[in-house]
Amino acid sequence: MFKIFYDDLVIGQKEAFGAYKVTREEVLDFASKYDPQPFHLSDEAAKKSVFGALCASGWHTCAMMMRMMVDHMTKQGVAGMGSPGLDGIEWRRPVFPGDILSVESETTAKRESASRPNIGLVKSTYTVKNQKGETVMITRGNAMIAKRPS
Amino acid sequence: MFKIFYDDLVIGQKEAFGAYKVTREEVLDFASKYDPQPFHLSDEAAKKSVFGALCASGWHTCAMMMRMMVDHMTKQGVAGMGSPGLDGIEWRRPVFPGDILSVESETTAKRESASRPNIGLVKSTYTVKNQKGETVMITRGNAMIAKRPS
Repeated sequence: MFKIFYDDLVIGQKEAFGAYKVTREEVLDFASKYDPQPFHLSDEAAKKSVFGALCASGWHTCAMMMRMMVDHMTKQGVAGMGSPGLDGIEWRRPVFPGDILSVESETTAKRESASRPNIGLVKSTYTVKNQKGETVMITRGNAMIAKRPS
Repeated sequence: MFKIFYDDLVIGQKEAFGAYKVTREEVLDFASKYDPQPFHLSDEAAKKSVFGALCASGWHTCAMMMRMMVDHMTKQGVAGMGSPGLDGIEWRRPVFPGDILSVESETTAKRESASRPNIGLVKSTYTVKNQKGETVMITRGNAMIAKRPS
């Protein structure tokens, strides 16, 4: 079922994927569960905040990015084995209900795992943009990818 | 309504808060929406993965941490104005259904905003632990906090 392994990944490789429609219902649902700050739940409070209008939790933007990444990885058959973490997240612009998000990725580094002989570690930068082409978020992530079985 | 402003925050200050019970239902719900990788959805697939058993999406752990942070900030009356991002996330150990998570925070740096005279930027490290006292995640976050109105 896997087609793309650690061995196949090339530094500098770029990809573009995804279209995630942000709905008001989902923004409110995520925020009420995980980030109930006033500017993620109330139009009134958001208007007075630095964001200017009701906007998605930054963690919700991460979650929506992840969904686009997993769908893309699954489609491509990438042998993803999870992630040890991220080197950084920049929330550049608010994400509003009605926005349509997409992702541009670039592979920036790769190395074999010292502790797990079957796995390699890959660094990538993910730029999330809205339908206007504005960058709303940049993340620098690390992924564990299985090596091609010999 | 706000009681704690940028001016009140002290570098080196530590706090502990939260108790978030991780349920299997919520792990599956989050993963099916945002991170449908096999080891977050299937006991069978998870058993064969590096995690050993069905575990929460790392983004779900971030979301649960955020809920504990917002509840704590609200209780304390911290004048939180959102966040420009994080300097890093380390997913150290898997989070399993049944785990009870809590947070230890430390304020590590603060500076006034160059562009927004009413706001200061504060760096903090958040260590998320499970009920055994094991560290499951470390994040280094940035927050915008309002200055005390003069």
